Amino acid sequence: MKLVVLAVDLGGTNIRVAAINEHGTIKKRVQRPTLAHDGEASVLRSLISALEEVYQVFPEKQIKGVGVGIAGAIDIEKGIITQSPNLRGFDGYPLRDKLQASFLKDLTIMIDNDANVAAMGEKWKGAGIGVNDLICLTLGTGIGSGIIIHGMLVHGADGMAGEAGHITVDPQGPQCNCGNRGCLEALASATAIRREAIEALRKHPESELHKRCPHDPEAITTEMVYQSARAGDQVARKIFQDMGRYLGIGIASLINILNPETVVLGGGVSKSWDMFFPFTKEEIQMRALKIPAARVKIVPAVCGDDAGLLGAAYLVFHSAI
Amino acid sequence: MKLVVLAVDLGGTNIRVAAINEHGTIKKRVQRPTLAHDGEASVLRSLISALEEVYQVFPEKQIKGVGVGIAGAIDIEKGIITQSPNLRGFDGYPLRDKLQASFLKDLTIMIDNDANVAAMGEKWKGAGIGVNDLICLTLGTGIGSGIIIHGMLVHGADGMAGEAGHITVDPQGPQCNCGNRGCLEALASATAIRREAIEALRKHPESELHKRCPHDPEAITTEMVYQSARAGDQVARKIFQDMGRYLGIGIASLINILNPETVVLGGGVSKSWDMFFPFTKEEIQMRALKIPAARVKIVPAVCGDDAGLLGAAYLVFHSAI
Repeated sequence: MKLVVLAVDLGGTNIRVAAINEHGTIKKRVQRPTLAHDGEASVLRSLISALEEVYQVFPEKQIKGVGVGIAGAIDIEKGIITQSPNLRGFDGYPLRDKLQASFLKDLTIMIDNDANVAAMGEKWKGAGIGVNDLICLTLGTGIGSGIIIHGMLVHGADGMAGEAGHITVDPQGPQCNCGNRGCLEALASATAIRREAIEALRKHPESELHKRCPHDPEAITTEMVYQSARAGDQVARKIFQDMGRYLGIGIASLINILNPETVVLGGGVSKSWDMFFPFTKEEIQMRALKIPAARVKIVPAVCGDDAGLLGAAYLVFHSAI
Repeated sequence: MKLVVLAVDLGGTNIRVAAINEHGTIKKRVQRPTLAHDGEASVLRSLISALEEVYQVFPEKQIKGVGVGIAGAIDIEKGIITQSPNLRGFDGYPLRDKLQASFLKDLTIMIDNDANVAAMGEKWKGAGIGVNDLICLTLGTGIGSGIIIHGMLVHGADGMAGEAGHITVDPQGPQCNCGNRGCLEALASATAIRREAIEALRKHPESELHKRCPHDPEAITTEMVYQSARAGDQVARKIFQDMGRYLGIGIASLINILNPETVVLGGGVSKSWDMFFPFTKEEIQMRALKIPAARVKIVPAVCGDDAGLLGAAYLVFHSAI
C-alpha cells in the first residue's frame, strides 16, 4: 500500500495543503486564502476543508499522518502555536488538539516552525541531500532559519532555536522588528533592501533606481532594486553589496559556531544571488575559521515554495510514532 | 568491579592525568610540564609516563579507557590533532594511534577538544546537571566553547564546531588572532581586558589602575584590573563594562540561534563576575528574543580546572564502544 502524508503550509496569506508520498512526490495540491483577520475558528475551518479535499482523493488507510509548518514559535511536543507574527490572535492556540478533534482524529499530527520544515525539505529533496549538518536561511521579508545537526532539527528548550535572523551583526545597526538593533534580519532581508532603497531614492534622484520608481518611494520592490543593479546602477549595487556583506558576517558566525557541511540560501532575496553573493563570500573568507570555511558549501535552495511542505511530510514519514 | 577512566588534559603548559570513577570522583592525579618546544616525541613520552603512573595504581581490568581533551581542532573519528595553537608542531599528529601503540593498546581511547570536554564535565558534575541543551564558554586568554544539543556534543563536519569565541560581535572591532576583526574573543577575553587596560594606563595616569601597575604597562594582569574595579576605579570599571556588553552581544546571538536551557561561564575572567555580568545581562535582555531569554539560565562554572578531565572521562564512560 502506498502511503502519503498530508502536508500543510499555514502562512499569513495562504493555507497550502498537499499529499506527498514517501518519495517526496506531490500527488495533489489545494490552496485557500488564510484570512487570519476572520479569526481562529474561521482559519481552522478553511484548513480542515482544504485537508478534507486532499484526503478524499486517498482512501483512509493510505494516510500516514499530517505535517504542518507555521511561521512562528511552536511547542512541538504539545502541538501549540506559542507565538506567531503572521497569525495574530493564534498565540497559545492548541492547533494539534483542534485538528485531532476533526476527521483526522486517528492520525499522527506533527507541527513545526516553517523555517525548520523548509530546512528539512531541502535536506530531503533539495540542496542538502545526504547532508547531516546543515543550516537553511530563508531570505524574505524577514530571515528565517532551520538548523539540522546530526541529521536532526535543533529545536532548543522552547522550540525557538534557529532564529539566526536575530544574530547581532552590527551592535549599532538599525532597529529590528524584534526590538534589538543590528540583527541580521534588519540588515540582509527584503525589508532591509527596501529601507535602504527608499533612503537611496531620496538621496539619488539621478539614479537608474529612481527612474524605475519615480513617484512613490514606498512603491519600491526588491525586484526593482535588483533590475537596477543588473542594469549597472551603482546606487542599487551598493545596496546589494552592503546586504551581502552583512549576510556574510552572519553566516561566518554560524560557520564558526556550528561547522556545517552546507548552508542553503532560499527565499525571494536569494534570487538576487549574482548581486550579493560575491560580497557574502568575501566576508566569510575574511571572518570564518579556515578549516570550516574551506569545508562549507553555500548553495541556493532548490525546492522553492515547496520546501516547507516536503519537510513537514518528511517529519511525519520519519517520526518514531 | 569498579571501573575508572584515565582522563587527560593535554595543555600548552601542563599535562594532567587523573583516574576518575563512574561517579565522577577523582581517585588519583599526576601532573607533568608539557615542554612542547622539546618536540612531539618528548611530549608523548611525558604523557605516557604520566599515564603509566596513574595506571599502576589500578589493576588492568579496572580501566575502562582513556579520554583526552586538547586545545585545538580535533578529528575525533581518527583521533588526530588537526590544528592546535598551544601545541605547535602537532598539526596532523595521530595521537590516538600513538597512544594505542603504547601500553594502552587494548583500551578505548577518545580524543576531543578541551572546550568540548569542559562543557561535558559541567553537564555531568557541574553547573549543567540534567541539562540537555547547554553552551559552556571558557573566558581565558581566548574564549573556548562547547555546545551540547540533545545531550550530545556538537562537533560539526570537521570537529571545529563550538568556536563561539569567533562570532563577530563588532564588524569594525579590533583584530583577533584568528585573522578576523571584532570577534567575541577579541573583545571579551583576558587578552581584550589587558589590551584595554594597557591603553587606559597610558590615558589615565591618575587612575587607581595606574597605581597598581605604575611602571611597565605590559605587566598589567586581569586580576589588577579587577581589584581596581572593586576599589571603585571608574577606568577599570569601564573596561569590565565594555567586555561584559560584548559578551552579552555574543551570548544573545547564541541564545537566538540555539535556545539553550543553560549557558555556563568558566575560565579565569569569569571570576570577575560581579564587575561584568550586570552589563552582559542588560545586553542579553535587549538583544535576545523574549521566550528564550526568559528561559535561559546563565551561571558560573563549578568544576574549575577539572571540568575537562571530568568531561573526557564522561565521554569514555558513555561511549558506545
